[in-house]
Amino acid sequence: MGVLSARLEEFLDSQIVGVIATDAGDTPLQSVVYYVREGERLMVSSTTARRKVKDVERTGWASLCVMGFERPFPSATFSGPATILTTDIGRPTAAITQRFMGGDELPEIQTDEALAGVGRVIIAITVERVAAASWLD
Amino acid sequence: MGVLSARLEEFLDSQIVGVIATDAGDTPLQSVVYYVREGERLMVSSTTARRKVKDVERTGWASLCVMGFERPFPSATFSGPATILTTDIGRPTAAITQRFMGGDELPEIQTDEALAGVGRVIIAITVERVAAASWLD
Repeated sequence: MGVLSARLEEFLDSQIVGVIATDAGDTPLQSVVYYVREGERLMVSSTTARRKVKDVERTGWASLCVMGFERPFPSATFSGPATILTTDIGRPTAAITQRFMGGDELPEIQTDEALAGVGRVIIAITVERVAAASWLD
Repeated sequence: MGVLSARLEEFLDSQIVGVIATDAGDTPLQSVVYYVREGERLMVSSTTARRKVKDVERTGWASLCVMGFERPFPSATFSGPATILTTDIGRPTAAITQRFMGGDELPEIQTDEALAGVGRVIIAITVERVAAASWLD
């Protein structure tokens, strides 16, 4: 069984952006990303040129800190093994696009070849640890 | 001269929480914190027991990723040398308290001795680098 309670799953599904951190060698690297949850995995769309993608390839780890946007700002940091996916990424990529576009319908699912053509990848974080949880009881 | 443009200063002053990252040795550590800007420094209230405080004491570095809460989620990551302050921390601590309490008046400024009594410190990040800036032109 995973580490995500129903409450945490609901929280993750209610938000669409988070702050990803990777280990850039000298210091951590942070940026805001869109994500979608698939079971115990958090899927982040990125491109091969990004330093965070290279960090994940090198270290196999990432964390995502997600917060609610109203006081008292419920939040938690989800972390674990991370990998760069390049196959079967059409559906999560479309799901992430839908989340930031805000529509009711899933956008057209692109092929892995089409996504590879624009350098698009998925950073998949398997959540093994939930830390710094605040206002999420 | 510092690295913060007027636009970035305005952005930082318009938000009250961010995600701090420290180097915890094995992996980065992230959590949501309240902050206030003092010139080129970002002041975060914390306590001596926190792992992020120990990380800053050991590494002398931290970053804070701040995002706006409406689409398209303007954001940037501010990083640089960080230190743990225990003197003259009454005013920034009160300013941070005011920001999360939301009132018009600055709360009573506590003495350093009173704040030390409850383990309260300030993590001061001198912003030397702004990265991953998005929708902040």
